[in-house]
Amino acid sequence: MVDKALDRLFLDTLKDVYYAERKILKALPKMARGAESRELKEAFEKHRDETEGQVERLQQVFEILGKRAQGKTCDAIEGIVAEGEEILEEFKGEPALDAGLVAAAQAVEHYEISRYGTLKRWADMLGMKDAAKLLDANLQEEIKTDEALTMLAESSINQRALDKAA
Amino acid sequence: MVDKALDRLFLDTLKDVYYAERKILKALPKMARGAESRELKEAFEKHRDETEGQVERLQQVFEILGKRAQGKTCDAIEGIVAEGEEILEEFKGEPALDAGLVAAAQAVEHYEISRYGTLKRWADMLGMKDAAKLLDANLQEEIKTDEALTMLAESSINQRALDKAA
Repeated sequence: MVDKALDRLFLDTLKDVYYAERKILKALPKMARGAESRELKEAFEKHRDETEGQVERLQQVFEILGKRAQGKTCDAIEGIVAEGEEILEEFKGEPALDAGLVAAAQAVEHYEISRYGTLKRWADMLGMKDAAKLLDANLQEEIKTDEALTMLAESSINQRALDKAA
Repeated sequence: MVDKALDRLFLDTLKDVYYAERKILKALPKMARGAESRELKEAFEKHRDETEGQVERLQQVFEILGKRAQGKTCDAIEGIVAEGEEILEEFKGEPALDAGLVAAAQAVEHYEISRYGTLKRWADMLGMKDAAKLLDANLQEEIKTDEALTMLAESSINQRALDKAA
């Protein structure tokens, strides 16, 4: 890498999403334990495993840059995850809990989709083909997860939320 | 509305996004003032005007519910906007500033896209056709804004960020 203005912004944003993914790695088991339905538990567990792979891909991007993999506190993900935890508490035992957890998880996915979209675009511009590929792999997984959550919500979870309030 | 479990979740999430839109309404003029390029300033100003219309649509949804329009602190948007402000400070005067501001704005858009996608789905399920229409109007505007920001970034702003670091 040469000393372009975009270099530091790229590295900063990479640290931001690295922090975010590791935060999500810790949050997903809590979401899986809290979810009522088996399908949603399994979806969160599956995405936890995927997230491990995503963290590894990010470590490879750091390697490409010749930098140590390091997170930087990401206020956005702190806030988004806090909202998910609030749903877990506020709707515990209610038929709407899972619908709320899906919504919280989709907010997480969309944050990551925006981050990976940006980082991939910048990696392309900086001529870092391999990094762009790794970031695109994460991006595609997040998009698929978001779509799977939508389908899950539409198939059963939202329906359950139409039950009478507890 | 009858007393379904989803009702309270819907109202809660509506308050969340109402708080978020009003926060964004205050943040956008700061982003517009901070942006270097005329195109980005104009994009932020245009979206500020759109956001006013979105707040009004949300007020109409509250009316449909027979509830007072009221926000509920949204930690997610607090965090996302804080990251944008950090970019404004950290990259002030650098050629990468606008690229960073676009990325921050796209994180905001994606949060809203996830919220409106969820709310629209729930309004449909709750049989609130008019509310679903209003929420969809906001959703479509956010999607368009996100696409416009991507085009802006690709046309000129990221190019400028490839200049030598300040």
